[in-house]
Amino acid sequence: MAQKPSIPKGTRDFTPSEVVKRNYIFDIVKKHFQTFGFQPIETPSFENSDTLMGKYGDEGDRLIFKILNSGDFLRKVDDNLYNSKDSNKITSSISEKALRYDLTVPFARYVVMHQNELDFPFKRYQIQPVWRADRPQKGRFREFYQCDADVVGSDSLLQEVELIQLYDTVFTDLKLDGVTIKLNNRKILAGIAEVIGAKDVLIDFTVALDKLDKIGEEGVKKEMLSKGISEHAIAKASPLFNLSGSNADQLERLEELLKDSEEGSKGISELRFIMETITSLGLQSAKLVIDVTLARGLNYYTGAIFEVAAPEGVSMGSIGGGGRYDDLTGIFGLKDVSGVGISFGLDRIYLVLEELELFPEAIDRSLDVLFLNFGPKEGLAALKLTTVLRKQGIKADLYPSDAKLNKQFKYANNRNVPYVVLLGEEELGNSSFIVKNMKSGEQQTYGLEETQKFIDSL
Amino acid sequence: MAQKPSIPKGTRDFTPSEVVKRNYIFDIVKKHFQTFGFQPIETPSFENSDTLMGKYGDEGDRLIFKILNSGDFLRKVDDNLYNSKDSNKITSSISEKALRYDLTVPFARYVVMHQNELDFPFKRYQIQPVWRADRPQKGRFREFYQCDADVVGSDSLLQEVELIQLYDTVFTDLKLDGVTIKLNNRKILAGIAEVIGAKDVLIDFTVALDKLDKIGEEGVKKEMLSKGISEHAIAKASPLFNLSGSNADQLERLEELLKDSEEGSKGISELRFIMETITSLGLQSAKLVIDVTLARGLNYYTGAIFEVAAPEGVSMGSIGGGGRYDDLTGIFGLKDVSGVGISFGLDRIYLVLEELELFPEAIDRSLDVLFLNFGPKEGLAALKLTTVLRKQGIKADLYPSDAKLNKQFKYANNRNVPYVVLLGEEELGNSSFIVKNMKSGEQQTYGLEETQKFIDSL
Repeated sequence: MAQKPSIPKGTRDFTPSEVVKRNYIFDIVKKHFQTFGFQPIETPSFENSDTLMGKYGDEGDRLIFKILNSGDFLRKVDDNLYNSKDSNKITSSISEKALRYDLTVPFARYVVMHQNELDFPFKRYQIQPVWRADRPQKGRFREFYQCDADVVGSDSLLQEVELIQLYDTVFTDLKLDGVTIKLNNRKILAGIAEVIGAKDVLIDFTVALDKLDKIGEEGVKKEMLSKGISEHAIAKASPLFNLSGSNADQLERLEELLKDSEEGSKGISELRFIMETITSLGLQSAKLVIDVTLARGLNYYTGAIFEVAAPEGVSMGSIGGGGRYDDLTGIFGLKDVSGVGISFGLDRIYLVLEELELFPEAIDRSLDVLFLNFGPKEGLAALKLTTVLRKQGIKADLYPSDAKLNKQFKYANNRNVPYVVLLGEEELGNSSFIVKNMKSGEQQTYGLEETQKFIDSL
Repeated sequence: MAQKPSIPKGTRDFTPSEVVKRNYIFDIVKKHFQTFGFQPIETPSFENSDTLMGKYGDEGDRLIFKILNSGDFLRKVDDNLYNSKDSNKITSSISEKALRYDLTVPFARYVVMHQNELDFPFKRYQIQPVWRADRPQKGRFREFYQCDADVVGSDSLLQEVELIQLYDTVFTDLKLDGVTIKLNNRKILAGIAEVIGAKDVLIDFTVALDKLDKIGEEGVKKEMLSKGISEHAIAKASPLFNLSGSNADQLERLEELLKDSEEGSKGISELRFIMETITSLGLQSAKLVIDVTLARGLNYYTGAIFEVAAPEGVSMGSIGGGGRYDDLTGIFGLKDVSGVGISFGLDRIYLVLEELELFPEAIDRSLDVLFLNFGPKEGLAALKLTTVLRKQGIKADLYPSDAKLNKQFKYANNRNVPYVVLLGEEELGNSSFIVKNMKSGEQQTYGLEETQKFIDSL
C-alpha cells in the first residue's frame, strides 16, 4: 500500500516559479552586500547543543529543534534519570546536536573560532535557513531563511551609516521605493527610563513602548502600570507617545528631555551623527525617520536600533531590522568585540513584491524556445540546433518524443514558451526551420544558415 | 566561564574564500541546468520520518538523522515500550521528523504531491544540503550538498543524450577538460547475468563486477564465488573483465555475447543509440566510453548508468553519476513514471579544481578599492566617493576609523585589496584623491571630476 505523501507542518515545498523569485531577491541582496565589502560565510545546519542552548531565553530553548543521537542512544542514559521519564531532563542525554535557531549565535561562534584568521573589522553576510519549533501560522514557518549582514570589531558610527545606505540601495534595486527606515538608539531608551526614574524596569518599559502602534497609548500605559512603573513615571514619559515633526525637531526635543542623562545624551549625539551624515550623503528612495518607540524587544542591542517598514499602503510587519550590540562574542570568551548588523526579511519582502507586482516580467520563464519533435531524423537535426542555442545561453529544449503535435503544443503552452520551432520532414529537406511566435501566432521561416539571426532576435 | 566553541564532527564552517569558490561551481552548474530547460525546486530540510524510512535499506535508516519531538515528548510513550529501553523501538514514538538523506526521495515525494500542477516531462534541478550520520572521515561529511538534475515522465533516450551533453557542457565551462563519462546499461548487466546463467544473483554479480578497478579480476572472481556464483558462470563472464578497443568494437562484441538475451540485446541497442547520437552531435571536451563494469551499486537503476571520472592524473573517485530508474514515484503511489537523472559531486569537483588550479584568478577578492580614513571631514568625502563606486558595482569600502595609517595599510594588505585611495586634508582642499596600486606601489592623483575615469580603469 503506497503512502500518501505529505510534508511536516510549518515547512514548504518551493515550486520553480517560487525558487526563481526568491533567488531574484537573494541575488540583489548579495550583489549589494558584496559592493559594500561584506564577505559570505556559511555555518553548519546543526551546532553542538551547548552552543545554542541558553542563548535565546527559556522560550528559545524550547523552540530549538534537537537532533536525536545516533545508534543506541538510550544505552548511556542513567537508569534513575531514565525512570523519571522527565523529557526536559533526559533531552541532553539523548541529544547532543540541535538545528540552528538564528544566524547570530553561530556567527558569534564562528568569529571566536576563527578569530586568528580574520581581519577586523570583519564584515560578513550569511544567507541560510534557520529552524524553529514554533506553532505554524500564516506567515510563520518552522523553516525559513535569514539574511544577515554584520560588522564586528569596529565601534565607528560610519557602520550604522553604511547599513542604512545598504537598506536604501537594496530596496531601491528591488524597485520597492518608499520604504521607511526607522532609527532609534538603545541609549535614548535607557536615558528616558533614567530621567523618568524607571531605570530598573527599562526592559518592561521598552517592551511596552514597542507596542504603541498595536495597542495605543492607553494600552501601553496600562501595561506599564501592570509592570510596576509608577503613574508619575508614565506621566513624565507621556510626551514621548506623540513626538512628531521633522527629525531635527524631534532630536531637539529629545535632547531637552534627556539633558540630565549622560547615557541619553550620548544616544542623542549618536543619533544626530547618523542622521546628519545620511542627510549629507542622501538616500535613493528610502525615508529615514526617528522612532523612539522602536525597541524591537531585543535586549541585546546597546546602540542604534533599525527597523524597516514596507511602503505605505502595504499592510505588512517590518521587512528588516537590526542594531548594534556591544558584546556578541563574550558568551564564547572573546570580549570587547562590538558589532552592528541588519537583516532582511525574505518571506515578507517576497510577499510585498508579489502584492505590488514588482517582480520583473517573465522572471519565471523557464524556457525560451521549444523545438517540436517530428521523428528520429528531424529530432536529431532539432537537437543540433538546440545545442547551438544553449551554447549562447538560450533556454532551449527539444520535446523528447514525436508525440502528436497538439500534445506538444499543449506542453509548450503550459510551460509558457514564447517561441516554438518546427523542423519537420520538409524543413529537414530544404535546411530550414519555422519559428512560431506563440503569443502572436505569427510564423517565420529561417534557413539553417540564418540560425544566428534567429538567436539575435530572441 | 565562557564556553570554548566547537562544531559537530563531520560538519564544516565555510570561509568567505570557500563560499565564493563553491558558488562559482554552483553558478556554472545552474546556468547550464537552465539552458537545458531544467527548473529549480526546493524541498524542506526535514521530512516526515515515514517519507524517508525504509527507502535506503537498513544501513540508510540507521544513518538518517532523526529530530526529537518538541515539548514533553516522553509523555506519549507507552509505559511498556518505555520500560524496554529499546532505542530502536522507541525512536518512532519520540521522533516524527528526519533530516533529508538525499534529494531523490524528496523529489519523488514532490512529484507525487504536485503531480496535478506539473507538466510532464518535468525537468527539475535541485541543489540543497543532505545529512547522513556516517562516520566522518577524509572527504566524507555529515552535511554536504547534492546537486541533481532529473527528468521524469519521458522514456525517450534523448534524455540520456542530453544529460551526457550537460555533463560535457558543465565540465567544459569549469575548464575541467578531459573528464571521462562512463556509460553502461542495467539491461546489459542483466543480460550478462542471464547468458551466464546467474540471473538470480544479478545484484551480487554487479556489485562484485563494480569492484574490478579496486580489487582486480581475481578479487572479483573470489567475491563472486563467495556469493554462490558458479565457476562455470564466472568463466563465461570472464571476457567482460578485459573488454577493450573502440566503443564500436566493444558494442559489437557485447552484441555477440548477448545475442540470446532479449533484455541484454535491448540494452545494447539503447547503448548504441546513445553512443551514435552523441557521436553525431559531438562533445566539447569530455570523452564518452562504454564501461560494462559500471554498476554504481545502486539497485534502482533500470536503464542507462552514468559515471564521470576526473581527468587522468587526478586521483579522485567519481565526480558525478546517475542513471535511469523506471519507478521512482511508485513508493508514493504514482506508477509508471520513468525518470533519468545525474548528479554533480560538488565537494570532489571543488578539490579537483583546487588541485589543478582552475578557479579563476582573484575569484575570492572581496574588495576592489579601500578608502583610507583621515578623519571625520575627509572620511565623509571618502564615503561619498565610496558610494559612487558601489553604485557602479565596484566592491568598495572606507576604513571605519582614522586609525594610524600603517594599521589601515596592513588591513588593506591582509584583505588583498588591489587599490587603496588616499583622501587626506590636502586632497580634500583641492578636490582630488590619490590612488595607490598596492601591487606596483605606483600612485596616481585624480581630480574629483575624474572619478569616472578612475572607475573605468578598474
